[in-house]
Amino acid sequence: MYRSHNCGELNASHINTEVTLSGWVQKSRDKGFMNWVDLRDRYGITQLIFDEGRSEKSVFELAKTLGREFVIQVKGTVIEREAKNKNMATGDIEILVTELNILNAALTPPFTIEDETDGGEDIRMKYRYLDIRRNPVKNNLLFRHKVAMEVRKYLSDLDFCEVETPYLIKSTPEGARDFVVPSRMNEGQFYALPQSPQTFKQLLMVGGMDKYFQIVKCFRDEDLRADRQPEFTQIDCEMAFVEQEDILNVFEGLTRHLLKEIKGIEVEKFPRMTYEHAMKTYGNDKPDIRFGMEFGELNEVAKSKDFPVFNAAELVVGIAVPGIGSYTRKEIDGLIDWVKRPQVGASGMVYVKCNEDGTYKSSVDKFYDQADLSNWAKTTGALPGDMIFVLSGPADKTRSQLSALRMEVATRLGLRKPTEFAPLWVVDFPLLEFDEESGRYHAMHHPFTSPKPEDMHLLETNPGKVRANAYDMVLNGNEIGGGSIRIHDKATQQLMFKYLGFTEEEAKAQFGFLMDAFQFGAPPHGGLAFGLDRLVAILGGQETIRDFIAFPKNNSGRDVMIDAPSIIDESQLKELHIKLDVV
Amino acid sequence: MYRSHNCGELNASHINTEVTLSGWVQKSRDKGFMNWVDLRDRYGITQLIFDEGRSEKSVFELAKTLGREFVIQVKGTVIEREAKNKNMATGDIEILVTELNILNAALTPPFTIEDETDGGEDIRMKYRYLDIRRNPVKNNLLFRHKVAMEVRKYLSDLDFCEVETPYLIKSTPEGARDFVVPSRMNEGQFYALPQSPQTFKQLLMVGGMDKYFQIVKCFRDEDLRADRQPEFTQIDCEMAFVEQEDILNVFEGLTRHLLKEIKGIEVEKFPRMTYEHAMKTYGNDKPDIRFGMEFGELNEVAKSKDFPVFNAAELVVGIAVPGIGSYTRKEIDGLIDWVKRPQVGASGMVYVKCNEDGTYKSSVDKFYDQADLSNWAKTTGALPGDMIFVLSGPADKTRSQLSALRMEVATRLGLRKPTEFAPLWVVDFPLLEFDEESGRYHAMHHPFTSPKPEDMHLLETNPGKVRANAYDMVLNGNEIGGGSIRIHDKATQQLMFKYLGFTEEEAKAQFGFLMDAFQFGAPPHGGLAFGLDRLVAILGGQETIRDFIAFPKNNSGRDVMIDAPSIIDESQLKELHIKLDVV
Repeated sequence: MYRSHNCGELNASHINTEVTLSGWVQKSRDKGFMNWVDLRDRYGITQLIFDEGRSEKSVFELAKTLGREFVIQVKGTVIEREAKNKNMATGDIEILVTELNILNAALTPPFTIEDETDGGEDIRMKYRYLDIRRNPVKNNLLFRHKVAMEVRKYLSDLDFCEVETPYLIKSTPEGARDFVVPSRMNEGQFYALPQSPQTFKQLLMVGGMDKYFQIVKCFRDEDLRADRQPEFTQIDCEMAFVEQEDILNVFEGLTRHLLKEIKGIEVEKFPRMTYEHAMKTYGNDKPDIRFGMEFGELNEVAKSKDFPVFNAAELVVGIAVPGIGSYTRKEIDGLIDWVKRPQVGASGMVYVKCNEDGTYKSSVDKFYDQADLSNWAKTTGALPGDMIFVLSGPADKTRSQLSALRMEVATRLGLRKPTEFAPLWVVDFPLLEFDEESGRYHAMHHPFTSPKPEDMHLLETNPGKVRANAYDMVLNGNEIGGGSIRIHDKATQQLMFKYLGFTEEEAKAQFGFLMDAFQFGAPPHGGLAFGLDRLVAILGGQETIRDFIAFPKNNSGRDVMIDAPSIIDESQLKELHIKLDVV
Repeated sequence: MYRSHNCGELNASHINTEVTLSGWVQKSRDKGFMNWVDLRDRYGITQLIFDEGRSEKSVFELAKTLGREFVIQVKGTVIEREAKNKNMATGDIEILVTELNILNAALTPPFTIEDETDGGEDIRMKYRYLDIRRNPVKNNLLFRHKVAMEVRKYLSDLDFCEVETPYLIKSTPEGARDFVVPSRMNEGQFYALPQSPQTFKQLLMVGGMDKYFQIVKCFRDEDLRADRQPEFTQIDCEMAFVEQEDILNVFEGLTRHLLKEIKGIEVEKFPRMTYEHAMKTYGNDKPDIRFGMEFGELNEVAKSKDFPVFNAAELVVGIAVPGIGSYTRKEIDGLIDWVKRPQVGASGMVYVKCNEDGTYKSSVDKFYDQADLSNWAKTTGALPGDMIFVLSGPADKTRSQLSALRMEVATRLGLRKPTEFAPLWVVDFPLLEFDEESGRYHAMHHPFTSPKPEDMHLLETNPGKVRANAYDMVLNGNEIGGGSIRIHDKATQQLMFKYLGFTEEEAKAQFGFLMDAFQFGAPPHGGLAFGLDRLVAILGGQETIRDFIAFPKNNSGRDVMIDAPSIIDESQLKELHIKLDVV
């Protein structure tokens, strides 16, 4: 053993103990006759003291050669510190060093190994192993482990069985792009890496496993938007003999358990909201409900006056932003510019200041009188001192723009508190969504989602109106999980593939095994999957998942530390029966 | 909820309770006026009774239509069973059914869903979801989950942190073949799937994570021998600031914990054996020590007589097989034929019967007298009633043949008891092994293994003699884990790559990131990995890993259930910048 204790555990109770510690030199302060070194390991920092009067000369001299991030081992005696540091667990003591052993020297790191570092994103990714030494990243990884362990314990205690499903599976054209793996032994054929273990978990239900979960890597070869990774981790779950209500209860229980165990927060029963309500009230299927600002639809009270913009619009909709009724024209213009940015895309914005004296001042005073504006205030729930912002245009687009504005002002006003947690269920998602590009309907969740039985009759006549037994768990404006009750009979599954534009042959070639399985006694079943990366980030009070992944990839899908992907040998290609096709 | 209870929990205490159960029809016995159905789910079997006298006519009639593996839901009353079955948890009761709901019909399964099935391997793989319904397979999966959970709990409690390392990494020519993944975004480049997270776990040690583990899928594109899978699962571990002794203690503790928690078996401190000793005494670096039959080297006592075969041999070596001294000539010939099979490859075998009266009868009585044979008996530890088998030839080959014989007779004599567990450590593995084919040395473990400091000087002069700080954990004749203390400084690592035949450029291109990392303060570290599939199989008292994997692949690397790998679209290939190169 290179140590008797770690660098985070010694305190006043250990005074006069002989100890051996190992770790990294965080910093050293050379005062000539006295030399202090902060020794760091995963568990903390312990102060070492080298004293010309009390230390061996050779030890004292060697200590002067120590640079930052040197790896050393010391033996010494725990002594009481003169200048105690109440902010450190080990702040009452220091080690008077009698033996010093340099285990490994270190070059000067390319950025400082401190909580606040001077290193930019790129350099920290290239030297990720140094970044991991920093508390913020290290603590994120420890936190992630803790969350994953709690998930496993909770589900295991409920008789869920973690089953490992295969990583080398079959490519299917549905959904996002697959990563594929050429097979050496099966010439001209390819495996695909799973986008999710969806069909396997359903087969496990057919196989009677009853309650399945898995914390599992999934893969999507998509163009990477900010904060997406080509490989990501899911908490994947499935249950047999359940209805939607059962699933919501189990996984609400899991989430409540995590909030309590990990964050010490008790939450009420999660509110439930239909997709339709979420879209009308928040313009968004994953509303952040930590703050109000619910949408007020103003068609009735704002149309049929002489304001042509509103009169021509499909939807006029506003929100009351609390406490900013006294914004200056410049501040308001700033927000108007914000919604007009191409990323948001509004063509303009109407505002109404709700004065403290009960009067209103708006940008459309020419068209609307105080009584009109008072109606707007009533509809949006605005109080004196608030500001109403109103957007208009095509309904879907306008709601989406107002949702963006709502989130932006909430962020600016500090209403999205990272220490506050507001989970909810969004339910009754549409089964299908129309894709303008391909001119046909796609499965909103995936092709295995069960339509609501009472909406089945609409499949032929009004497919966009068919609701699914599908649900999302939303936390602080982020979708952290989603799932559905599945189809469990061959006929319905065949029908679904037909509506999704599969020929009978295609359906059979790709999912024949699943439909076959449904013929041999498939139980009713359903499940959901949580995105672990995002769940952990949000529980950690942060927004970016990258800092909760040990070795993330950049936006081009590269691991800049190991320099992957990379070229491979001609002979390797030959064995795999492929050739490059590059320009 | 489709049920109030599961099919394994009802007993006499529930009599007169109204219950709802769901599950599969295991079998039904139609006695005309009475119809019994065994209802099965993951948790057990409960007997249902449909009685012409006591059940609704429609329910009674419907019950007659139930086929095997139909999925049904029933409501009814728990009643005392007339003919109790003490072998079933639910054997005291049955359910008098009042409502029957067929949730899903089932085709007749292609094999019987019983503990002993009539289905062959191929058909069971094709319909793996049906195979999983069978107790033996289902219980293996539940058992695997339990083992994995215990591993995680044990290591977590010791402050190990599970860190997920990436699956899309970089291809390296060292070791087995990689599976590769063409990159769409990085034209002409490929990721590789990890053969193990080796370099990442070492980087985590450089990053100060201190104690790491991960239960993780690994991938090797090798020709599949029986009981190998292209994707397999490792319990991967690494620790910093440790010596070999620390690692052996931690993971011996883990294994002892598993044996106790999972099997209820307490084992002594694991014996340790050097590689050299294991090879000399068992002809094998993973000896099964549940039984004796240690090798006796007979060169001294068998050479320099007139038997030319032995005199010409590098090694003469024998084992004493207990209690078969009275084998007939035919039985002995059977074993001689066995060792002469091409898979074993011996050219012949000498035997000595140790008679109960203390005399000997051998196949080489022409050359050796009773005193000679008595010496053989002493050397091999043979007692009256035993049989000595002696092989001769080149040392390595002969040891390997005798090892095969030793295992074979132990199996035939029932000495390899699945309920007995004999773990041990094999230590001091050679660093390098000579590869006849390429005419150079290869790393026996991997290129990151540290040579023993005291053997470093032999690297230039006698590389085959250099021992490594490398160790294997062996359980019942199977290697279940192995690892090493790693090199943690750049100079030694560079030297190692040089000895392994890497040019400086190759070493830098493939492992530059690791050697760079070693310059920034790498701690001494080491670790090991267990093969989870095998560990679980052995703990489960079985030899084949396939039955402990939910969805295994066959010997051609195919998943015959989903029919993967398969061809992919031309457009997919184009996006990935590759073309097929098939004949």
